Amino acid sequence: MKSLGIGLIGTGFMGKAHALAFGAAKAVMGDVPDSHLAVLCDTPADKAAQMADQFGFAHATDDWKSLVASPDVDIVSITTPNTLHFDMAIAAIKAGKHVYCEKPLALTLDQAREMRDTARAAGVKTMVGYNYIKNPAFTHACRLVQSGEIGNIVHFRGWVDEDYQADPSLPWTWRAKLSDAGLGALGDLGCHLVSMAYGLVGPIESLIADMQTVHATRPLADGTGRANVENEDTASALVRFANGVQGSLSTSRSAWGRKNRLAWEVHGTKGMICFDQERMNELQIYRNTGDTSQQGFTTILTGPEHPPYGQFCPAPGHQLGFNDLKVIEATALLRAIRDKHAAYPDFDHAYEFEKTIHAIALSARNGLRVSLSDL
Amino acid sequence: MKSLGIGLIGTGFMGKAHALAFGAAKAVMGDVPDSHLAVLCDTPADKAAQMADQFGFAHATDDWKSLVASPDVDIVSITTPNTLHFDMAIAAIKAGKHVYCEKPLALTLDQAREMRDTARAAGVKTMVGYNYIKNPAFTHACRLVQSGEIGNIVHFRGWVDEDYQADPSLPWTWRAKLSDAGLGALGDLGCHLVSMAYGLVGPIESLIADMQTVHATRPLADGTGRANVENEDTASALVRFANGVQGSLSTSRSAWGRKNRLAWEVHGTKGMICFDQERMNELQIYRNTGDTSQQGFTTILTGPEHPPYGQFCPAPGHQLGFNDLKVIEATALLRAIRDKHAAYPDFDHAYEFEKTIHAIALSARNGLRVSLSDL
Amino acid sequence: MKSLGIGLIGTGFMGKAHALAFGAAKAVMGDVPDSHLAVLCDTPADKAAQMADQFGFAHATDDWKSLVASPDVDIVSITTPNTLHFDMAIAAIKAGKHVYCEKPLALTLDQAREMRDTARAAGVKTMVGYNYIKNPAFTHACRLVQSGEIGNIVHFRGWVDEDYQADPSLPWTWRAKLSDAGLGALGDLGCHLVSMAYGLVGPIESLIADMQTVHATRPLADGTGRANVENEDTASALVRFANGVQGSLSTSRSAWGRKNRLAWEVHGTKGMICFDQERMNELQIYRNTGDTSQQGFTTILTGPEHPPYGQFCPAPGHQLGFNDLKVIEATALLRAIRDKHAAYPDFDHAYEFEKTIHAIALSARNGLRVSLSDL
Amino acid sequence: MKSLGIGLIGTGFMGKAHALAFGAAKAVMGDVPDSHLAVLCDTPADKAAQMADQFGFAHATDDWKSLVASPDVDIVSITTPNTLHFDMAIAAIKAGKHVYCEKPLALTLDQAREMRDTARAAGVKTMVGYNYIKNPAFTHACRLVQSGEIGNIVHFRGWVDEDYQADPSLPWTWRAKLSDAGLGALGDLGCHLVSMAYGLVGPIESLIADMQTVHATRPLADGTGRANVENEDTASALVRFANGVQGSLSTSRSAWGRKNRLAWEVHGTKGMICFDQERMNELQIYRNTGDTSQQGFTTILTGPEHPPYGQFCPAPGHQLGFNDLKVIEATALLRAIRDKHAAYPDFDHAYEFEKTIHAIALSARNGLRVSLSDL
Repeated sequence: MKSLGIGLIGTGFMGKAHALAFGAAKAVMGDVPDSHLAVLCDTPADKAAQMADQFGFAHATDDWKSLVASPDVDIVSITTPNTLHFDMAIAAIKAGKHVYCEKPLALTLDQAREMRDTARAAGVKTMVGYNYIKNPAFTHACRLVQSGEIGNIVHFRGWVDEDYQADPSLPWTWRAKLSDAGLGALGDLGCHLVSMAYGLVGPIESLIADMQTVHATRPLADGTGRANVENEDTASALVRFANGVQGSLSTSRSAWGRKNRLAWEVHGTKGMICFDQERMNELQIYRNTGDTSQQGFTTILTGPEHPPYGQFCPAPGHQLGFNDLKVIEATALLRAIRDKHAAYPDFDHAYEFEKTIHAIALSARNGLRVSLSDL
Repeated sequence: MKSLGIGLIGTGFMGKAHALAFGAAKAVMGDVPDSHLAVLCDTPADKAAQMADQFGFAHATDDWKSLVASPDVDIVSITTPNTLHFDMAIAAIKAGKHVYCEKPLALTLDQAREMRDTARAAGVKTMVGYNYIKNPAFTHACRLVQSGEIGNIVHFRGWVDEDYQADPSLPWTWRAKLSDAGLGALGDLGCHLVSMAYGLVGPIESLIADMQTVHATRPLADGTGRANVENEDTASALVRFANGVQGSLSTSRSAWGRKNRLAWEVHGTKGMICFDQERMNELQIYRNTGDTSQQGFTTILTGPEHPPYGQFCPAPGHQLGFNDLKVIEATALLRAIRDKHAAYPDFDHAYEFEKTIHAIALSARNGLRVSLSDL
Repeated sequence: MKSLGIGLIGTGFMGKAHALAFGAAKAVMGDVPDSHLAVLCDTPADKAAQMADQFGFAHATDDWKSLVASPDVDIVSITTPNTLHFDMAIAAIKAGKHVYCEKPLALTLDQAREMRDTARAAGVKTMVGYNYIKNPAFTHACRLVQSGEIGNIVHFRGWVDEDYQADPSLPWTWRAKLSDAGLGALGDLGCHLVSMAYGLVGPIESLIADMQTVHATRPLADGTGRANVENEDTASALVRFANGVQGSLSTSRSAWGRKNRLAWEVHGTKGMICFDQERMNELQIYRNTGDTSQQGFTTILTGPEHPPYGQFCPAPGHQLGFNDLKVIEATALLRAIRDKHAAYPDFDHAYEFEKTIHAIALSARNGLRVSLSDL
Repeated sequence: MKSLGIGLIGTGFMGKAHALAFGAAKAVMGDVPDSHLAVLCDTPADKAAQMADQFGFAHATDDWKSLVASPDVDIVSITTPNTLHFDMAIAAIKAGKHVYCEKPLALTLDQAREMRDTARAAGVKTMVGYNYIKNPAFTHACRLVQSGEIGNIVHFRGWVDEDYQADPSLPWTWRAKLSDAGLGALGDLGCHLVSMAYGLVGPIESLIADMQTVHATRPLADGTGRANVENEDTASALVRFANGVQGSLSTSRSAWGRKNRLAWEVHGTKGMICFDQERMNELQIYRNTGDTSQQGFTTILTGPEHPPYGQFCPAPGHQLGFNDLKVIEATALLRAIRDKHAAYPDFDHAYEFEKTIHAIALSARNGLRVSLSDL
């Protein structure tokens, strides 16, 4: 198989993460098709050139359409602001490229659906950056759940909080504008939680929700007044999964002290598993087995027993970091292309995840229970 | 002031806790009116006699009505199963006694209201056993919130979980019967959480909720079949407080591994405070002040700086236990009687707390938002 | 058996703890001989009278010798400053009283030995306030070790730190004077750690040690200058137990942030157990059993499975506090008197514990390995 | 500056870590000289070829001497078993190459000294893989100490434990042989702890120590009997730093449940800082400032405020992993070569660190205090 050319659009947080991930995937995993960093796009052109040098891309451009069109590019990585995902992804798919897109897919569910359908029709492979479900601790949790280690699942609770919008004095930005950012905390954070709930318990059938813009206005950066914050700072939902399990989801981007608190607990008839991404190398499990005087929550430190941790490090407890999750993600896409199967999570899965956050917003606005099948 | 005679009904978990609390209150606190253990009631009579000897009561009886009527008794402590609270409390109030009743007040909100109104009319002092709000860590948290230490409150989340009904093979008991137990997890556990939310944020105005009987039937103890579980194992609500704050409450009695996880987090514009009763001597606080490179959640260990901890122990970090909370509670009632002011929480407050759990059950049943003012 | 009369000397931290413990022992435990609070001694006399009223003692005195001589007194509780223990204990024993003495027994090992020998000769029962070894979590740990749950013990580490002498600006007090306080951190704190090591691993055979007075002088309270601190702020030892296990002990009274960090870990061939008194209701255990992908440290929350927790509270995770440990301790003494066996830990055991702290001080001063059999 | 050619010897845990680190350094950090993966050495030759393909090296060889001699190689990375470090490093230095060597430098202190002296004489740059001191959390801790945030340092304690030799049934390997492995736990683990103590408190002046081979013999893998374990499973030392601070160090390779517990606490006159590598993205700090009722240990989650975390990820709390530490380490070497200054830690520093572990072994063997200046 020829080396797959990577075309990366964006050089921010996620852009760097994608570049590092493709750079390391084969060295880490071994059994991964070759890839090379072909074209990097950012604006202005000199920034693109500088970052191409830093990241090790062969070419730089300030024109994403030329990147998409380049014959050197087999995979288009989209790490731009959310509002740009749709056009770029559609164009890449139509150019026959595989697409690795950051979440959320798009600002609206209609756009997300169109992205999904276009990818389906084109037969290209897609991957969406729900990185946290690539954590070996999470994969292990899913395995434990599926193997019945905690019995039948009876309840789920999850939270995902950060504090980047907690300070009331922070100036207004595009993040506060519906037409630029789409959803607020739900789009930035909540969809990650949904992706985990989905993996642990399955699809959500219906929900009722509430949400709030905690800081209703913010000062304009130029000091000329204040502007409205149009999207939510917090959102919460009571959900019913298709398998009858009830649960709750909650998110806030205004939760002081939380830096990446993507946490959940899944309750079973025989035990419980808990997780917090702020301690991403740990998993808590309680099992109702053995001598009751010795029962308690066990803190599992991830290690080689939790694949693919061992590819990074043969010693347990030495810990993976955030960027390692992207290596696992990129590996999954590269292998999916080679092996001609769907990657996980691709646009189909991402569409399902994101349907839930739009359902939460809808229920919060109309005050009624929303069935996801009605969206 | 003459020594106050205690009449205690019940000798179980809470009965012993009340006996210990009255026995220790003055020794611990100093500034407390004298009381003495006058009459103990349980059935059968020999059990009452045995426990009176153990607890140090002067008299024993198997007839609670005689206890209520006894001129030696000034305070009636009610620690019987919930279904008996109403008759006992009404009788005690009508006999002119002060009443110290375990939570919840009654099986129904109507009964709770009648208890409240009867006590109001009689002018006796009442106290309800919402012991966790007597924890110096909780009191300190309320003080921090009220002093603006974390700014304006913007969000609240709480959970209260235990696992005493987690095992599907546990036999059916009266706890599962609406007419005996009333609410399930909400009545046992949820109302404690409400009492904390109330202290930290204030009254709840409206809510939407969902609930579930996870284990729909349980085996009869005599092996003759299975019977229905009529009340909820789990319940969750999205709440709006009167001051506009949104939040969520959730409870489960089927949460493996949770022994007393009465936990919450209160989000403010300047910080956050978190608590978990399973580590009842600790409080977590994050404040957005000072050098950002040193910010994080601070774990406060309770000590003499957090009254009335110092009455129990002059050394910080040495820890209070559950029974100490009852000493604080009993002290509050004894002082209220002496000082002729209302105790906290009395039947009025308990009624407000319990209105919320009934509202949760109502909303969960009818699927609609419930305003507490409509109850 | 007639009710045992308690004579308590001292009304401070430990005085109150003893009073509460005797007041609650029978109510909590049931199977405990009757006792009553007979005589309380403190100075001046009006303070004694006031505290006798608060604690519920029948009589008050400012003359400890009259308390010791009182026919109403069967047990003398000594909670005075360490320098007074010796005279009081010897007098009480000679008066035929049982003695409940706070730790350490005395300022010097010679005095401790004489106390032990005098008690042995008199045949009275004694108890020493090493309260932490009464914690159900500790008792459970010992049981686990003895049952081989973590295999053969191979290593031990312990620390006991507080911060009451951490602030360099604190004024000089009697605590800093050898002739008044004896040892510093070792006497206040270190001996507690030894009592735990002894229970978990057994007697120590020899050790090498180092110690330091971190704050060599302190300001006089009257502002007239500075005085020397004559005893140690920190001490550490490398120990060899009689059974061949090696380990280390360390203590500091100048450890900022530590309020009662009496912590240890015991390493076995099959697992490890860890404990920290600042979370006194928790025990950590790691066992090399079962599926390795699920191994980790399990946090056991104490409950009724860990006697005598259930006597205080039938619900797990509800937590005991410091004063509850004294109830367990007082119970052990009362039962020992009734059942005519030695209490644990009595003066014999305390002497063994305290031999270790004096050996540490000796080794630290002379720089050589000290065998405890040579003391 | 021309791109620096990397010659890597070894493809195990550390070999892969070096390959990944050089592969990512410039992409992560930007301001780093170019480097390229030139030659990879392992045996047999086909393994070298396979791993060169996986890691992205241009050439493969099974002859380390040819690698050292290769004109394409500017930096020789030595990640082979410890017993081979000496010959390889000396050869590389003599060939004028910069050397990046894993710890410990060598089996004996004499060899380590010769490596240091040879490197000094040659003027090449060296780096030793004490990766944990590259952790932004550690760097931040050093900064806090140096800025006086916790006052003057008064005490230090550290531990470093793993459990790779905890199971008594594990077969005998070369690790147990002095002539192959040199020191046991001290060489594998203890030296890491020393490197941290050195950074936080400074050089150690003298110490007394004890050590033990917990599992004195192990079964031969071929079932023919048992062989002696010649080096230590545990070691502990009481140390005195040159600045007068006392402390203790302890290590075990037989500590069940510890996967990478490289933990320490540094006590100051104004506060304390604690760390545990098993939660490598967290730092605990207690400061005696502000309202005492709000004091406690603060858990700092590392983020962009703790350079160079932000180079990996602009979002706090998202976490670095073990391999990221090697990127920081490789970056330091590459920059040192470019900027013509010494790297940290180079052979000089590593020699100082390792002098301590050899002093511990010496003191443990002869039972006497060892001054490091005498080694």
